[in-house]
Amino acid sequence: MKQGLFITFEGADGTGKTTQIAKVASWLREQGYEVVCTREPGGTKAAERIRELVLDAELAISHKTETLLYLAARADHITQLIRPALQAGKIVLCDRFSDSTFVYQGSGRGVELQTLKMLDDFATSSLHPDLTILLDGEPEELAIRRNARGVVDRFELEGLAFQKKIREAFLALAASEPTRIHVIDALQSEENILDEILTDLQRLLAK
Amino acid sequence: MKQGLFITFEGADGTGKTTQIAKVASWLREQGYEVVCTREPGGTKAAERIRELVLDAELAISHKTETLLYLAARADHITQLIRPALQAGKIVLCDRFSDSTFVYQGSGRGVELQTLKMLDDFATSSLHPDLTILLDGEPEELAIRRNARGVVDRFELEGLAFQKKIREAFLALAASEPTRIHVIDALQSEENILDEILTDLQRLLAK
Repeated sequence: MKQGLFITFEGADGTGKTTQIAKVASWLREQGYEVVCTREPGGTKAAERIRELVLDAELAISHKTETLLYLAARADHITQLIRPALQAGKIVLCDRFSDSTFVYQGSGRGVELQTLKMLDDFATSSLHPDLTILLDGEPEELAIRRNARGVVDRFELEGLAFQKKIREAFLALAASEPTRIHVIDALQSEENILDEILTDLQRLLAK
Repeated sequence: MKQGLFITFEGADGTGKTTQIAKVASWLREQGYEVVCTREPGGTKAAERIRELVLDAELAISHKTETLLYLAARADHITQLIRPALQAGKIVLCDRFSDSTFVYQGSGRGVELQTLKMLDDFATSSLHPDLTILLDGEPEELAIRRNARGVVDRFELEGLAFQKKIREAFLALAASEPTRIHVIDALQSEENILDEILTDLQRLLAK
C-alpha cells in the first residue's frame, strides 16, 4: 500500500460523518495504519481562511465566487496535505470533497454539473477518492437529529425542499458511480453504520 | 451609451497605471460622464479580503490556489460592482483584469492558457473589456522607476527574467487581440501617455 488510500465521507449535515470518521480512524490505527483526518472546506491554513470567508454571510458572495473559493481551498488542501499524506502511504479520511461541490454548487446553486467537473478537475489535478461513503437519510429525520444538536449552517437555513433536492443529487451521483460511492443508511445505529463502512474498507484494504 | 463602458488598464507594476487611471477619470468626469475606478484583485469587500489572502506570503499557496482565488475575487467584483455600474451607464476603469491572469498565472506560473481562458470565462460570465490599455516598457527601465517609488511585490521579487517573460506575454496577447488591446509606450511622459489614451477613448465614445 505504497500510495496510501483516499476515502471521503459525504452526505447532508446531521448524517454523522464526523462521528464515523473518528471511529474509522480509531479502527484503522488499531490495525497499524497511519491515518490523517481532515475536512473540506479547510484542512490547511489557507483553506481554513478561505472557509471563514465563504461562511461569512455578511459578504453576500455570489454562487460563482462561492464555487471558486471552495475550489481554491481544495487545491491548497490537496497540494499541502492530501497528496503528501498519500505519497507517504497514509490513509486520508476527508469530511466532504468534490461530490459536495457537485451537489451543493450544482443542484443546490444551479451551476452546471459539466462546468463544475471541469473546474474541479483543474483544482484537484484529477485526484479522485478511492472510496466515498455517502451517509444518506430522509431530510425530515435528519432535521430532528440536527436540531437536537443545535447545529445551523447556511444550507440548512434554506429549508426542507432544498435538503430533499440535495439528497436526490447525492443519490444520483452515487448511482452514476456505484463502484466508488457506497450509500449507507444514516438512520440506523452508529454501530451498524460503522460495521458497513468497515466491511467496505476491509474489501479495499485487501486489494 | 446606456450600457456603459468597461475599460481595463494592464501592464507591469511601475508602468503608471494608477496615475493614468486617475487622470482619465478626471477628464471623463469633466466631460460629464459618471466614472467608477476600481482594481483587481479587489474592488469589493469580499475581493479585498481574497486579495489579502493571495498576497499573504506566509500561506505559501500553490499556483492553482492562487489562480482560483484571483478568479473568485473577479467573480465577486463583477457581480457586485462592475456589472451594476455598467448597467447604470457608467464608465468603469479597472486596474488589471483577465489579461493579468492570462499573463501572470499563464506565462508567469505555467498554467495552460486555454484552461485559464475557460476558468476566466466561468468567473466573468464572458464579460470582456470594451478597451484595454496596455502600458508597455522595457523591464530594466521600469525597474528603475519602481525602485524610485520603493514598491516591492511578490512578482518583482522574481527578478528581471520573469519581468521580461511577462512583458512578452502581454505583447503576445495584444498582438492576438489588436482591436481591444492598445499598446502604449509607458516610458514616454505622463502627458503623452494620457494623450494617447484619450485619443483611443474619444474614438470609443464617438461610436
